[in-house]
Amino acid sequence: MSKKIIIPGWSTGDSSWGVTKPYLDFFSTFGQVDIITPRKGIVEADLLVLPGGMDLNPNKYGEVPGFYTGNIDVYKNYFYEQNLQQYVEAGIPIFGICLGFQSICSYFGSKLTQHMYHPYSSSRSELVHKVFPVVGKEPTDGYLTKRGKNDEHFKVNSLHHQAVSQFDLSNDLKPLYIDEDGYYVEVVKHKTLPIAGVQFHPEELGYQEETFELIYSLLNLKSK
Amino acid sequence: MSKKIIIPGWSTGDSSWGVTKPYLDFFSTFGQVDIITPRKGIVEADLLVLPGGMDLNPNKYGEVPGFYTGNIDVYKNYFYEQNLQQYVEAGIPIFGICLGFQSICSYFGSKLTQHMYHPYSSSRSELVHKVFPVVGKEPTDGYLTKRGKNDEHFKVNSLHHQAVSQFDLSNDLKPLYIDEDGYYVEVVKHKTLPIAGVQFHPEELGYQEETFELIYSLLNLKSK
Amino acid sequence: MSKKIIIPGWSTGDSSWGVTKPYLDFFSTFGQVDIITPRKGIVEADLLVLPGGMDLNPNKYGEVPGFYTGNIDVYKNYFYEQNLQQYVEAGIPIFGICLGFQSICSYFGSKLTQHMYHPYSSSRSELVHKVFPVVGKEPTDGYLTKRGKNDEHFKVNSLHHQAVSQFDLSNDLKPLYIDEDGYYVEVVKHKTLPIAGVQFHPEELGYQEETFELIYSLLNLKSK
Amino acid sequence: MSKKIIIPGWSTGDSSWGVTKPYLDFFSTFGQVDIITPRKGIVEADLLVLPGGMDLNPNKYGEVPGFYTGNIDVYKNYFYEQNLQQYVEAGIPIFGICLGFQSICSYFGSKLTQHMYHPYSSSRSELVHKVFPVVGKEPTDGYLTKRGKNDEHFKVNSLHHQAVSQFDLSNDLKPLYIDEDGYYVEVVKHKTLPIAGVQFHPEELGYQEETFELIYSLLNLKSK
Amino acid sequence: MSKKIIIPGWSTGDSSWGVTKPYLDFFSTFGQVDIITPRKGIVEADLLVLPGGMDLNPNKYGEVPGFYTGNIDVYKNYFYEQNLQQYVEAGIPIFGICLGFQSICSYFGSKLTQHMYHPYSSSRSELVHKVFPVVGKEPTDGYLTKRGKNDEHFKVNSLHHQAVSQFDLSNDLKPLYIDEDGYYVEVVKHKTLPIAGVQFHPEELGYQEETFELIYSLLNLKSK
Amino acid sequence: MSKKIIIPGWSTGDSSWGVTKPYLDFFSTFGQVDIITPRKGIVEADLLVLPGGMDLNPNKYGEVPGFYTGNIDVYKNYFYEQNLQQYVEAGIPIFGICLGFQSICSYFGSKLTQHMYHPYSSSRSELVHKVFPVVGKEPTDGYLTKRGKNDEHFKVNSLHHQAVSQFDLSNDLKPLYIDEDGYYVEVVKHKTLPIAGVQFHPEELGYQEETFELIYSLLNLKSK
Amino acid sequence: MSKKIIIPGWSTGDSSWGVTKPYLDFFSTFGQVDIITPRKGIVEADLLVLPGGMDLNPNKYGEVPGFYTGNIDVYKNYFYEQNLQQYVEAGIPIFGICLGFQSICSYFGSKLTQHMYHPYSSSRSELVHKVFPVVGKEPTDGYLTKRGKNDEHFKVNSLHHQAVSQFDLSNDLKPLYIDEDGYYVEVVKHKTLPIAGVQFHPEELGYQEETFELIYSLLNLKSK
Amino acid sequence: MSKKIIIPGWSTGDSSWGVTKPYLDFFSTFGQVDIITPRKGIVEADLLVLPGGMDLNPNKYGEVPGFYTGNIDVYKNYFYEQNLQQYVEAGIPIFGICLGFQSICSYFGSKLTQHMYHPYSSSRSELVHKVFPVVGKEPTDGYLTKRGKNDEHFKVNSLHHQAVSQFDLSNDLKPLYIDEDGYYVEVVKHKTLPIAGVQFHPEELGYQEETFELIYSLLNLKSK
Repeated sequence: MSKKIIIPGWSTGDSSWGVTKPYLDFFSTFGQVDIITPRKGIVEADLLVLPGGMDLNPNKYGEVPGFYTGNIDVYKNYFYEQNLQQYVEAGIPIFGICLGFQSICSYFGSKLTQHMYHPYSSSRSELVHKVFPVVGKEPTDGYLTKRGKNDEHFKVNSLHHQAVSQFDLSNDLKPLYIDEDGYYVEVVKHKTLPIAGVQFHPEELGYQEETFELIYSLLNLKSK
Repeated sequence: MSKKIIIPGWSTGDSSWGVTKPYLDFFSTFGQVDIITPRKGIVEADLLVLPGGMDLNPNKYGEVPGFYTGNIDVYKNYFYEQNLQQYVEAGIPIFGICLGFQSICSYFGSKLTQHMYHPYSSSRSELVHKVFPVVGKEPTDGYLTKRGKNDEHFKVNSLHHQAVSQFDLSNDLKPLYIDEDGYYVEVVKHKTLPIAGVQFHPEELGYQEETFELIYSLLNLKSK
Repeated sequence: MSKKIIIPGWSTGDSSWGVTKPYLDFFSTFGQVDIITPRKGIVEADLLVLPGGMDLNPNKYGEVPGFYTGNIDVYKNYFYEQNLQQYVEAGIPIFGICLGFQSICSYFGSKLTQHMYHPYSSSRSELVHKVFPVVGKEPTDGYLTKRGKNDEHFKVNSLHHQAVSQFDLSNDLKPLYIDEDGYYVEVVKHKTLPIAGVQFHPEELGYQEETFELIYSLLNLKSK
Repeated sequence: MSKKIIIPGWSTGDSSWGVTKPYLDFFSTFGQVDIITPRKGIVEADLLVLPGGMDLNPNKYGEVPGFYTGNIDVYKNYFYEQNLQQYVEAGIPIFGICLGFQSICSYFGSKLTQHMYHPYSSSRSELVHKVFPVVGKEPTDGYLTKRGKNDEHFKVNSLHHQAVSQFDLSNDLKPLYIDEDGYYVEVVKHKTLPIAGVQFHPEELGYQEETFELIYSLLNLKSK
Repeated sequence: MSKKIIIPGWSTGDSSWGVTKPYLDFFSTFGQVDIITPRKGIVEADLLVLPGGMDLNPNKYGEVPGFYTGNIDVYKNYFYEQNLQQYVEAGIPIFGICLGFQSICSYFGSKLTQHMYHPYSSSRSELVHKVFPVVGKEPTDGYLTKRGKNDEHFKVNSLHHQAVSQFDLSNDLKPLYIDEDGYYVEVVKHKTLPIAGVQFHPEELGYQEETFELIYSLLNLKSK
Repeated sequence: MSKKIIIPGWSTGDSSWGVTKPYLDFFSTFGQVDIITPRKGIVEADLLVLPGGMDLNPNKYGEVPGFYTGNIDVYKNYFYEQNLQQYVEAGIPIFGICLGFQSICSYFGSKLTQHMYHPYSSSRSELVHKVFPVVGKEPTDGYLTKRGKNDEHFKVNSLHHQAVSQFDLSNDLKPLYIDEDGYYVEVVKHKTLPIAGVQFHPEELGYQEETFELIYSLLNLKSK
Repeated sequence: MSKKIIIPGWSTGDSSWGVTKPYLDFFSTFGQVDIITPRKGIVEADLLVLPGGMDLNPNKYGEVPGFYTGNIDVYKNYFYEQNLQQYVEAGIPIFGICLGFQSICSYFGSKLTQHMYHPYSSSRSELVHKVFPVVGKEPTDGYLTKRGKNDEHFKVNSLHHQAVSQFDLSNDLKPLYIDEDGYYVEVVKHKTLPIAGVQFHPEELGYQEETFELIYSLLNLKSK
Repeated sequence: MSKKIIIPGWSTGDSSWGVTKPYLDFFSTFGQVDIITPRKGIVEADLLVLPGGMDLNPNKYGEVPGFYTGNIDVYKNYFYEQNLQQYVEAGIPIFGICLGFQSICSYFGSKLTQHMYHPYSSSRSELVHKVFPVVGKEPTDGYLTKRGKNDEHFKVNSLHHQAVSQFDLSNDLKPLYIDEDGYYVEVVKHKTLPIAGVQFHPEELGYQEETFELIYSLLNLKSK
């Protein structure tokens, strides 16, 4: 039976409300996608997708907003403050993208870097930097980026100006992939719950093996 | 229990897909609104709302497109060709607005006027013309517009360039309100099925008694 | 000596940060205006001005955001959450305009109407509705709008879509002026503290006696 | 005597109707070009040109519209549904470009890919990919792309997001050229009728030998 | 049999060529409309329509261009210089609108006023001034505007800044209607040839009796 | 004494009239620049500059306008038709750029290519192609492009879509530089009169020796 | 002989330099208009026109710029600082419009109001307020606005936000017309020199008797 | 204790007044940044920052404005004319960027090049040219650019069209870095006062050692 995937909608224009097409097209690969409207309780589903968007309220991690920090999406802020805990407690799998990834990180106690200085992708499908699988010891010893046999990595786009450093990451979360400098976390998975996220934008990129496997695992699907 | 109201989404911008806010805000008055994505079958609901939008394909009523006829919304055209009959047959109540009203009229065999010459509202909330309740005999004798005691009418906005003349209206449908000239139909109800529609845009106007009563009746709700 | 008036700045464009010119021009009438940047503590001043802006986070008054609720200014949200209490406790006089007025109302426990249906001013200097002085008994008995001798009132502009009903107003605040329908509060003053606010935009209107007197009183200045 | 070439016009702007200049300029090379307006019957001509444009209605090939599928041109849809068969039956030669090519393919029973992931040309005259002549067995055995002596190919622009795979192509049509991956058909010719089409945009490119020869052959002209 | 009506096309946008929709829609009332492309000879037809557009080259009537004189449409200038005489000599009926009217006037030797100071219509369908039938003596004695019984007139829109004064009108042409000041000619007819024109824009206005009669007479049609 | 240089102005915006800044800045290097307004006679000067602009009326060289031919500047057309001969006869030196160059060529009997297919400069200061000095016999024998010692050439920008082939050039004019293909003329000088022109845009390029020498010679100035 | 009228040009767009068309058209009524470029000395003429534009540098009248004060035109500032005195001393008649009027007032020692609160014209040709002839005693006694027999006045447009109060006007200048409130000066004339100016924009209005007489008198022309 | 850094604000949009975010973000690295509003006197601070902006009034260095010279910022012009000397005399350290650098140079008697011909950066963070430390003798002997061991230099962005040549630099100022051609000055320091400036835009570039050291030295801070 088709998996039910839900995405909370938001203002996608002055008079429109919904979800941008790349998200709908991308997640249609994995099941039937529904857009949910703001409400007090939860909607049953096989996967909750937290999409990208405006900046996270810096009060969430206790900082004065910087001059490059952007404004706050009222719907995503509501979801973060009122609904996210309900979904976590209900055990519904969650997959976050960009702001969604940052929200998951912040929810479990990570701090965000409010503004990074690094080049954006010039187009959403441009693959501008490499991400490397993380290996090594527990955080007290520092993570290590494996660049072993074959320099294993994959390439991603980059459309964010906020980020999560591996040194600010919550202990509840396990970093799976990290950027070339071994500094910012690119893929994360909760150590015990069916919750994961990516800093980049897979919905713009089509098929990419590691990301698809991560989503298949959250959905209890076998990869195709 | 809250009524479940569904609205088929469509392109509301270059990269957005959803429903415009006035529809969501207006129908939230009557129940919990969900946006549905394109699919082959139907979604169970207490009310299906067919919103306004681009022009109806003139092939539906057998005419060469005129030079003022607009292009065709691919999602609404799909819904019209593939899903509408399924909802009608399932007995799910339907309420149409503007293009939705015209689609209902066309579905039951009415012909559209491809382009009217009349002034638009300068703003969406402007009440530019009066609509009058229809009384009188069956179509073979011609409808009459009642202008009896107190010149009973209400005022509506006007944001359409296609329309349904009372002389082109299907026999399955009963015209409830008609414009000042006694020519174009403004409110319609199916003679036996829980299906109705309005040519104007109530979602821009806030509370208006006759329209609210019509929606309450489709939802089997008592008016407040 | 010239009074020191401070206004917290915010994003007034993609790459600009400051305060719009009407505020600066208007408050220069009363003293030397300084723009303050985000920080953890307070800045000493004779008057803190809370200007208009984006919508207040509906979580502040416990509601699901409506479809017309706008996004949240990160700087004003920070100020509201982190600095406002410090200024109140320091006894620095505060004057709020529009969102600033709503923030004061919310801070002391009032609830906001998330979206009103009423016509905006077509220009910022248009005087579109009358406000009337409030008289009568304490809240438990209901306020009354005085329309006594001479139908005393003054006219204001109207550029807000959120508002505070007199029935949702905190007991700490005293409504001074109210709209024509006796419903929404237009001018408010704290019962014991040097804090006041107006729902309209005096900074667009030039001299208006009642507003000037209110600001003079906060500044301990004699009216000119 | 000059050949008579006709192109069905369409909305070329909010209030204009005609044909874009590159088509007129390009086909003026081959004869006197006339723009035809919507009508029930056909216009006699030596060549009917079906130009590019909006997306084909996915109902034509039996699919739910995807989230990247565009809206439908009312004039081209009318022509496709009402006139195309008449021209085919009258034996008037037909040349299709982009949407015109896809319409020919669909008319004879091919299915379209609703959205490809591939880079567009950054300008209309950019030659971004190679097309290769098709050789080999009948479809049941699979086509082959010849990359024989001299790696024979020519280069084309690419401004489409829908396409026809060689595996979805109707048996009535013969693929002449195919893309580098041997997947999407780039040039097609009907096996018995004077009908051909190209997926790319020759009207932007000036002289290109294979395309000119194809048009000369439809017009029974000797190449110059 | 349907009358054949031709309109010379022109640039209707940066990359489009054709005719604006109001002309096509309006003249479809009288027959089958064809758009003609630039060529050396003429196209047989029952009526040639000369539409509105950019300014007439002031060299045609021997004046230095004024600072408000606009640029020259290359296609309409070509038609004026190379084709108009051919159509006149072939006896094909001609109807001119705005620039088309001015071109007819200039072709027969009238001089244009390069720039009038008068208010434009704020919308194309606005009826902003009255035109009166012309009576009285031959030009040497001065025309008179009849304002006799019933103040006979009809109302028109006004979207031109160049005009033809009755004092600059060629003797070959008979003014039928004139503006309220008795100065600028609004409707003209050739004294012996099937050629007429109007300064206003009937294609924006729908049915108007005098204009329809004029076109019917050029087409040898009875009015409906 | 400073040389007096005149440039006929034209519409440089919807409501402005003058000359673009690069022309004024460039020719200020050679003397005091004056902008002249349209008039019947000439203005005394040491140099008349004919600047670039819209397309030349194709009637000047006897052709039907093509679909890429642009509209006609009313001021430059007036100057071409009414003033140019007066300046030539008065012996005032003339220097033409782009359209000015083409106007000089056309005035002396050359024909223009209405639309070339070649890449424009992406910026006005980009030097995209080489021009070569012309040597060899008189036109009856065909010109030759010298590519002798050192492959002598200089590089220019390219912002035109009309051009003059050496095979269409008037016998009164001597081609000095020609493009890389030996086809289009880039610099021309009258055989006996102080008249010259360039197809490229020196006013965007700063110092370039050959162009400066040409202008110095027209002004009877020694090069600096 | 035609009068020579000069107007100093300025940036009329991002890359253009000259004068807006209304000035050129308006002053062409009185003579041959020339645009002058920046230079150190003067150009001989029968009339120097100082046109409207950006704001006058408030340093000229010794004030801190207000928050509504606009930026400074580099060409008009140069002319004011370097050339205006030369023209005054040479006795060349001067006529100022809007900023030109203010510059004359400031040059002779008047102070400007940096920002007035009053409604602008919604279009440049709208006649929004009345101006009255000034009569009465010398400044020490206060000017009076005559509203005698027939309430003599004429109507003007209003497109300025800076102004000159009669109480700030230099003694060298005589106010001829004043606004309805008897406060701001609308027409001024130097007491001994051929210098005058108007605060409104006659170049947008066509014929207006008092303004034309003023210009005729500066030009020593008889009115027509 | 945190250093107090002040930046004079200016119009950063039609209705905004403040400072662009990159300046605020960059100088927040060195202390608490305050925006100052126009006033007659000075504000005490540890550093006055003069930011980039529109062009300097060419009257300051005695030249006629060129056709590429831009308009003048009214607030920066006021600051230059009225406040700069006060800050210099008060001994408050000053750091200038771009226009601020040019203002410092001009204030001490340097002349500006009004328009350079050189390529801009395509983005503000692009490092397009090298700057070299200046060594060698006093100005009378000519400066030299050291390109000694290791070709010492650093790279900067370039967003200016006015500049200061080393040959036009005031004797009060010492050039520290110069461009690749040894012509334009890039970094300057006053010989005796705590005043310095850079022609490029460090606020767009993040950390750059030499610039940071320069600012630390003005603030009497040790580098970190």
